[in-house]
Amino acid sequence: MKKITVVALFLLGTSSLFAQKTDEQVLKEIYKQALTNSKSYTWLDHLSNDIGARLSGSANAEKAVQYTKAEMEKLGFDKVYLQEVMVPKWVRGEKETAYILDNKTKTVVPICALGGSVATAKNGLTAEVIEVQNFDELAVLGAAKVKGKIVFFNRPMDNEKIESFHAYSGAVDQRYAGAQKAAELGAVGTIVRSLNLRLDDFPHTGAQSYGDLPKSKYIPTAAISTNGAELLSKTLKKNPKLNFYFKQSCEQFEDVLSYNVVGEIKGSVTPENIMVVGGHLDSWDLADGSHDDGAGVVQSMDVANIFKNIGYKPKNTIRVVLFMNEENGLRGGQKYEELSLKNNENHIFALESDSGGFSPRGFSLECNKANFDQIAGFNTLFEPYLIHSFVEGHSGSDIGPLTSKNIVKAGLKPDSQRYFDYHHAANDKFDAVDKRELELGTGTMASLMYLMDQRGILK
Amino acid sequence: MKKITVVALFLLGTSSLFAQKTDEQVLKEIYKQALTNSKSYTWLDHLSNDIGARLSGSANAEKAVQYTKAEMEKLGFDKVYLQEVMVPKWVRGEKETAYILDNKTKTVVPICALGGSVATAKNGLTAEVIEVQNFDELAVLGAAKVKGKIVFFNRPMDNEKIESFHAYSGAVDQRYAGAQKAAELGAVGTIVRSLNLRLDDFPHTGAQSYGDLPKSKYIPTAAISTNGAELLSKTLKKNPKLNFYFKQSCEQFEDVLSYNVVGEIKGSVTPENIMVVGGHLDSWDLADGSHDDGAGVVQSMDVANIFKNIGYKPKNTIRVVLFMNEENGLRGGQKYEELSLKNNENHIFALESDSGGFSPRGFSLECNKANFDQIAGFNTLFEPYLIHSFVEGHSGSDIGPLTSKNIVKAGLKPDSQRYFDYHHAANDKFDAVDKRELELGTGTMASLMYLMDQRGILK
Repeated sequence: MKKITVVALFLLGTSSLFAQKTDEQVLKEIYKQALTNSKSYTWLDHLSNDIGARLSGSANAEKAVQYTKAEMEKLGFDKVYLQEVMVPKWVRGEKETAYILDNKTKTVVPICALGGSVATAKNGLTAEVIEVQNFDELAVLGAAKVKGKIVFFNRPMDNEKIESFHAYSGAVDQRYAGAQKAAELGAVGTIVRSLNLRLDDFPHTGAQSYGDLPKSKYIPTAAISTNGAELLSKTLKKNPKLNFYFKQSCEQFEDVLSYNVVGEIKGSVTPENIMVVGGHLDSWDLADGSHDDGAGVVQSMDVANIFKNIGYKPKNTIRVVLFMNEENGLRGGQKYEELSLKNNENHIFALESDSGGFSPRGFSLECNKANFDQIAGFNTLFEPYLIHSFVEGHSGSDIGPLTSKNIVKAGLKPDSQRYFDYHHAANDKFDAVDKRELELGTGTMASLMYLMDQRGILK
Repeated sequence: MKKITVVALFLLGTSSLFAQKTDEQVLKEIYKQALTNSKSYTWLDHLSNDIGARLSGSANAEKAVQYTKAEMEKLGFDKVYLQEVMVPKWVRGEKETAYILDNKTKTVVPICALGGSVATAKNGLTAEVIEVQNFDELAVLGAAKVKGKIVFFNRPMDNEKIESFHAYSGAVDQRYAGAQKAAELGAVGTIVRSLNLRLDDFPHTGAQSYGDLPKSKYIPTAAISTNGAELLSKTLKKNPKLNFYFKQSCEQFEDVLSYNVVGEIKGSVTPENIMVVGGHLDSWDLADGSHDDGAGVVQSMDVANIFKNIGYKPKNTIRVVLFMNEENGLRGGQKYEELSLKNNENHIFALESDSGGFSPRGFSLECNKANFDQIAGFNTLFEPYLIHSFVEGHSGSDIGPLTSKNIVKAGLKPDSQRYFDYHHAANDKFDAVDKRELELGTGTMASLMYLMDQRGILK
């Protein structure tokens, strides 16, 4: 039986070379390529420093589509193509201004409009402030105490959490739904403490939603830096009647046409089975999005580059998918799934990198127990590369919509401690990414793609 | 038997509280303290930004002694004291200059004198350059080809290595012994490629030794930035007759008096057994030494702070030791051992943090198999804190001299990918340290100190 397999693989050309190699040897080659011959860092340099911020619907997002398509065309994919997708276009406009007015003392604080927020009136908005820690406190206050005021959501991320994403999950409701909840009680605006574990001067933007509120009820909402939040809270304790002023000019336009970028290597044995590796091409508008998610984009492209360099021909069809509009709509991920259903495609595996270009620690997995156990069983193969964490949990937002039966979804899990130092803020720039940390992530992704291609998934 | 233990512990006061807690509970408290109530980051801010670079024998090193002594005195140790130690005093003098002279083209490159190097002549040194990758190549060239030249050691750190310290070990001989080897063959100076995995413009200093060469044979030696090394190598290929100029004014003075700083908590059960936790107080002179080893200093002090905050009274005597002169002499570590032998002390455990304030991954251990297995068996206790790596290997330079029978030595093992981005270079500053990464290291150290205090060591 073994003999037959070897003969069969021999007929598949270069795959035969791999039939003679152990998984240990292939992973060693992959990591060597990642650390000495990868393109991740060069690509990220271009995406960050030559293109820059890539909010959906912007000219830069379009440049990123064209750049990554052109780069993938150089890599020898069987095909590289664009998937049309209509995306929201929200524009920040001129830089926001804000200050605390404590009697006659005016103290400027750093804010930024949250994505999807409406503008203030042209000359800004001034109101008294009411601070709350959560939606329950807000509900107890009720319309009587909230009406006409700016609601200040100031619950910090919980520093006790070891994984910073857990601290984020516990605080993000304020940013995402705070404006809706406050508007329902007659507030005129909201200010939300930035989702940042550090005390610093960067306001962190991010998606927010007015839910099912009628448009006439929309109120402007902004994030304030953590230092600004501390100051506002402290000043409020001394003077609950202080005024807060802010001005923002953001605007929501009609949806515009954009694209997912897809590079495809046809499977040599079971081309009908598709494996996706991807990240999202859009970023927020305040910085280059080098960690979120330039890193995931270049790492995913590099998986194909490394396979090419080591001469590995995958058994299954591999698609590198650079999704558009993860940040404020998820339209790219939804469109990809829509087309997949339409074309009756069968996805067996999807891997996303959207947690920053930090030192890789493991994978977060969504799958049945048999597949979880198979992947967790790769731990000894990964041990020399310091990959040790195989947990059940969220894989990735863009691959979230995929529904193929038995599909296994995985998210690369880098060290999370610094992620929220940069997330959606003006310091998410190229120099915040370490070359080797980024490249080790690339090697880790390519290794899992290789192993999953070899082993397949279990029903 | 269990009953008797509980009664015995009850008599020891606050220890009784701990007798009722599981190790899981205590570690949870320790990490909570580390992440929400620790002093590591504040202390590091002062050491880095208010004091700064702390080369042995400098005024800043003395300030650091006084500052840490005063801070430890606030923590309620049973005693805080200084250990006198004579240390080398080497002074860099004015900033070095260097350029490549390729025919008439002069290109300035960043260099820095290696620690302990002699100066060039006052107006600098100009000579032809011969590039080698290692000592074998140098030996093959022999005196005929080396005499009168500057030897350029240009073997890069090996990017394929997963742990950056392994790449360092494989390249550091050029820096440490390059000048001696080249001088033996009549070279007039050496230029050494900086020990940095990145390509950038920072020269990285570090200790070097002329070995048993007579003083009259000492030649000036400097590190060149990795970009500078690449340029020099490329230019040499085109023009092997190019000249290199460098000028440095460094000087070695007489040894001066300095100090180890020691804070001691007397053991409540077996005070004769001593457990050390420490780092080194001196740094190189080009930057604040925030990672090397400000981080280790403040983490070690914070172990005592956390024990105090959670009311933990150790069974064994705990000493926080801030060693002087790790970088260019190891005199502090040697002096500590000398006094320990003189006083007939029994050390059972020593833990050092000297690998940077990065996200902690585990411990590097020097001990017999029984103790290794005991510590590796803590893995499930540490798993919630993402500590997964227990390996045999180098623990720490300052605790290296300790010789007590059966002593267990451990080094904190943080993620190593970024360490050599900063090591001994002008960018090893406070902003290169992430608060949470530093604090998780503190929690990890305090946890191991607690567990070792509870379990003791195995013969």
